Amino acid sequence: MRGALDCSSGNNQKTMNRAVRILRIINAEKSEFNEDQASCGKLCIRRCEFGAEEDQEWLTLCPEEFLTGHYWALFDGHGGPAAAILAANTLHSCLRRQLEAVVEGMVAAQPPMHLSGHCICPSDPQFVEEKGIRAEDLVIGALESAFQECDEVIGRELEASGQVGGCTALVAVSLQGKLYVANAGDSRAILVRRDEVRPLSSEFTPETERQRIQQLAFVYPELLAGEFTRLEFPRRLKGDDLGQKVLFRDHHMSGWGYKCVEKSDLKYPLIHGQGRQVSEWPLPRIPLKLPPTEARLLGTLAVSRGLGDHQLRVLDTDIQLKPFLLSVPQVTVLDVDQLELQEEDVVVMATDGLWDVLSNEQVARLVRSFLPGNREDPHRFSELAKMLIHSTQGKDGSPTGEGQVSYDDVSVFVIPLHSHGQGSSGH
Amino acid sequence: MRGALDCSSGNNQKTMNRAVRILRIINAEKSEFNEDQASCGKLCIRRCEFGAEEDQEWLTLCPEEFLTGHYWALFDGHGGPAAAILAANTLHSCLRRQLEAVVEGMVAAQPPMHLSGHCICPSDPQFVEEKGIRAEDLVIGALESAFQECDEVIGRELEASGQVGGCTALVAVSLQGKLYVANAGDSRAILVRRDEVRPLSSEFTPETERQRIQQLAFVYPELLAGEFTRLEFPRRLKGDDLGQKVLFRDHHMSGWGYKCVEKSDLKYPLIHGQGRQVSEWPLPRIPLKLPPTEARLLGTLAVSRGLGDHQLRVLDTDIQLKPFLLSVPQVTVLDVDQLELQEEDVVVMATDGLWDVLSNEQVARLVRSFLPGNREDPHRFSELAKMLIHSTQGKDGSPTGEGQVSYDDVSVFVIPLHSHGQGSSGH
Repeated sequence: MRGALDCSSGNNQKTMNRAVRILRIINAEKSEFNEDQASCGKLCIRRCEFGAEEDQEWLTLCPEEFLTGHYWALFDGHGGPAAAILAANTLHSCLRRQLEAVVEGMVAAQPPMHLSGHCICPSDPQFVEEKGIRAEDLVIGALESAFQECDEVIGRELEASGQVGGCTALVAVSLQGKLYVANAGDSRAILVRRDEVRPLSSEFTPETERQRIQQLAFVYPELLAGEFTRLEFPRRLKGDDLGQKVLFRDHHMSGWGYKCVEKSDLKYPLIHGQGRQVSEWPLPRIPLKLPPTEARLLGTLAVSRGLGDHQLRVLDTDIQLKPFLLSVPQVTVLDVDQLELQEEDVVVMATDGLWDVLSNEQVARLVRSFLPGNREDPHRFSELAKMLIHSTQGKDGSPTGEGQVSYDDVSVFVIPLHSHGQGSSGH
Repeated sequence: MRGALDCSSGNNQKTMNRAVRILRIINAEKSEFNEDQASCGKLCIRRCEFGAEEDQEWLTLCPEEFLTGHYWALFDGHGGPAAAILAANTLHSCLRRQLEAVVEGMVAAQPPMHLSGHCICPSDPQFVEEKGIRAEDLVIGALESAFQECDEVIGRELEASGQVGGCTALVAVSLQGKLYVANAGDSRAILVRRDEVRPLSSEFTPETERQRIQQLAFVYPELLAGEFTRLEFPRRLKGDDLGQKVLFRDHHMSGWGYKCVEKSDLKYPLIHGQGRQVSEWPLPRIPLKLPPTEARLLGTLAVSRGLGDHQLRVLDTDIQLKPFLLSVPQVTVLDVDQLELQEEDVVVMATDGLWDVLSNEQVARLVRSFLPGNREDPHRFSELAKMLIHSTQGKDGSPTGEGQVSYDDVSVFVIPLHSHGQGSSGH
């Protein structure tokens, strides 16, 4: 029952069964120990009210009262599936707990300065107003805290069981007419509408977070243990480059400069390689250029945010990866209630296996060509998810004509926006 | 001759005179010791070529050969005019030096891996290509390095002369068909065209850089010397809040959460206040709400980037501001050659005194209403700059009808894009 959503206080068997049913679909084409893991289901948040007469305690006035939402999550593991499985089993519970801790603020017209609703300073509502704090900021905060809490749980569990590994996490939560997308890693979510394709997340890789990572190494040089150079060069330098002026950039630069190469510049770079490891399909007989090397942090990891990896060290050294990795997601908010929804508006969430070979526009074209012809099929969103995956596998020909095939795990959710609560995926 | 541009090797008297003439215009309405300072002029970059036979040396093949551009800069000082005057006298020289150090890479079809042009690894052009490094990245890098170099000069000069202070810096450079805008502080540049208003810079204040500043205090708590709290609250907490759950956010959060108030949360906040200190005009007889308090870093500074401030400490303490301040600018590039330029397309650069009381759209409306009626006036761009300033002073009525007046210094450049080299400003 991996990933089943603990949707309520535990006695809501109907919801539970539904979650289990959805998970059968999720796992339809993947083994339990795949590095890609997923979970989805209904999210039921207990609403508690602060009893006016009991100042320091929570009083559950009405245990049946829920604020309900929907939750979809994709986890792409590395170094084994352990972290991804733990995240799929844990993150939704952390999120539910974090949301329940702030739900009274979420359902108020404006989050109160004090969760109790007590007004210590008469201008408190005005201070909150001037900071522009809205209910959605509490959901964003809850998602940020839930990722952190889940990361700590994974760290403890992996250490206790002697396991290792980490995973990316991409989460979508539908709540109070908004869709929240929280991302830590290189998965991606996009909104596809008839005449619009909108990214709902950004990727976090050693390349996109170069300045943050170099900055940390600048502040704490001991993290590199004298084995790596913080600086970026177009390629790894060698002895012949010594004394030459070569292109480089440091933590404070978004442009490039030239520097005279010293011996310490010959060390292995903190971030090395670039782009993604993608195979061309069909494979060219003669490689036309040097094979691309995926950008890696400390020669080890291709992502810069995610959960787990507490024990991960650079091979044969004591250099830890974790100080450079963040478990904090970036959260974007889609105001679904403000969209004039069409029946075929969907959000596509997928792990990097899909996006390595299909662009946002290519996925949008596939969505738009598939859905209108399958209006009668009750499983058309599941079928669309499967079709997207097949189109990365070299099966059924290559509908995009792009001729690339993904050898990575691929997981996809297609979320129809006009009726929340359906989700489909495949492997 | 404050701010005169050292445009060439020193013997180009014609250019120098021109720079001095422009500076008379700049200073037309301000004293020499105003906290706002400005400089502008032609930027002449010597092109040197690397002699193939002299491996480690620069050989000036043709000392008359220049790459020419134009330079405009605004500096808004605080704690006295010393830093702003130094910056106006120094930054353009730093920039010229930095550009001359990389000019051979800038004029090549693609910046070479080695500045000498030697190719140590046959795939070097491919590595540079794959990183997407273009000539403009060298200009961006040169601007970033020039700001840093200028900051160091200011630090040394102020210390040597026993002076104090700092300043913001907003620089525009027109070079090779592109306009580069580098900004450190809360000045702003916008592009105004007939049917477009585009921001060319972002402001750097304690509010916009909250997460970076809190992050540094998280990594180095000793920077706060136990006197400040890193956390943000909607208002400063007091004794009555102890034990209550109140809205807060920490360095890793873009959303908000609730935390139980402890005694250490009652300390003065690292970043306190919000928004800008703006006076309404006419002044309302009865204040309708609490007066806004400008967001300040450590209760001291309203900007988070700029030059100088090396000695600045929190009043009556040893707590230094500088570790939280960055001298690095953010650089944006406007590809002027790609615009279909109209005669009245301009860039408006101004210090915060203007933007505190006029929005981008209001400035655009003033530009569009002024220029067409003054086509015959050879000084119309200067007149426009003066008009913009007057409209913030309560002079000539308030053309915007917004009824706000700026009591801050105000400096404005209006740069016509269709014929570079003109610049005008006022105070």
